[in-house]
Amino acid sequence: MTYCVGLCLEDGLVMLSDTRTNAGVDHIASFPKMHVVENPGERILVVLSAGNLAISQAVLTFAQSGVEVDGTLQTLESAPNMFAAARLLGAAVRKVHAIDGKALDEQHVPFDVSLLLGGQIAGESHRLFQIYSAGNFIEATCDTPFFQIGEHKYGKPILDRVVHHDTDLRAGIKLVLLSMDSTLRSNLTVGLPIDLLVYRRDALRVELRRRITEDDAYFRDMRERWSQALRDAYRALPDFE
Amino acid sequence: MTYCVGLCLEDGLVMLSDTRTNAGVDHIASFPKMHVVENPGERILVVLSAGNLAISQAVLTFAQSGVEVDGTLQTLESAPNMFAAARLLGAAVRKVHAIDGKALDEQHVPFDVSLLLGGQIAGESHRLFQIYSAGNFIEATCDTPFFQIGEHKYGKPILDRVVHHDTDLRAGIKLVLLSMDSTLRSNLTVGLPIDLLVYRRDALRVELRRRITEDDAYFRDMRERWSQALRDAYRALPDFE
Repeated sequence: MTYCVGLCLEDGLVMLSDTRTNAGVDHIASFPKMHVVENPGERILVVLSAGNLAISQAVLTFAQSGVEVDGTLQTLESAPNMFAAARLLGAAVRKVHAIDGKALDEQHVPFDVSLLLGGQIAGESHRLFQIYSAGNFIEATCDTPFFQIGEHKYGKPILDRVVHHDTDLRAGIKLVLLSMDSTLRSNLTVGLPIDLLVYRRDALRVELRRRITEDDAYFRDMRERWSQALRDAYRALPDFE
Repeated sequence: MTYCVGLCLEDGLVMLSDTRTNAGVDHIASFPKMHVVENPGERILVVLSAGNLAISQAVLTFAQSGVEVDGTLQTLESAPNMFAAARLLGAAVRKVHAIDGKALDEQHVPFDVSLLLGGQIAGESHRLFQIYSAGNFIEATCDTPFFQIGEHKYGKPILDRVVHHDTDLRAGIKLVLLSMDSTLRSNLTVGLPIDLLVYRRDALRVELRRRITEDDAYFRDMRERWSQALRDAYRALPDFE
């Protein structure tokens, strides 16, 4: 499984993905699910992927090498704006479906892929999209400033409670890490290390990119503090009369 | 959807279920999913149900009116021990499958039902079982003292973090209510009112049974305090350096 989350906040983007993949319980490996295209001063695109690894790798490869959209060959490096980049990824998903869909269907393997695309291209604001396995997509708005793909339920309650469009980037980092923490605890197929990327609006370059491993002192400390805080908080609640 | 949770603690049982059912988003109704069989001093059985309502109602009806197990007609009131009661429920599930399974399959409706059975029958300790749609079942142990059925993921992290076999009943009540709170917030198809039942070991009668509605002052206050405590807790975490 996979868990990826992206926040589209007033101040910028916070993107987080795990790295674990599995085919059954005895074939577990680590693959990055965060792909960054950066042309400092001009564009920064971050793609997070979930679902079948063969499909998502093929989609990314096509999106980087070129897919035809409206008769023009486009890549993540050449798409003129974020909407075009989202369309490009959707077209890449449909291309992989055209190539592999029938054979997967014959093996009863679902065509399962979903992507988050966050970033900014000079000339417009930063944006966040979620692309479905049909190649269509939705965009985050002020009312719904976050998207999740993969094993999303365990980590949703904290985001539902706290994330708003005007949440600042520092708070956003803590929130995606807490969301990941809940997921890591409840689903063994989501695993460390995790990849964090922070983008500040209009910077047109990565502000922070960090691979967080088991040894990361901040994340370990945060997880312990959070567990303790939750235990303290539930103990402090009045008893049911 | 449905969310039901049962804790099997050293001191007894805590069982909680919501009441919302839906067939699509425009046919939402309220049905109790908690069924209690009590013969004070001799037995107390609590059944929580999730899945297809037509199936779970049929299963409960058969389990109350009688299903043949090993050549003997048994009911929830006559099963000689908790294991026999779990087998009875499993047999009722299989009976409904024998009656309705083919027709459901023809309509592409999955045979989806799951049950929690908690209780105590004089002569043995209190026990908690989870019955699957195949009619087989598992029992809670000291290592895994809780079971959930239905929309279980949103409410699992708090249980994973805090529930132990020696958690006391008052703490158990708070924890199942917090688990339900996270589920209610993240999935609109799980809804109030909710049904709470608490059983103290060896009492052989219900200790507490309460329907909790929107107007319940304790639950409303608890939800607000918990939200505030989570917000305070995340703000108190050190920022990512």
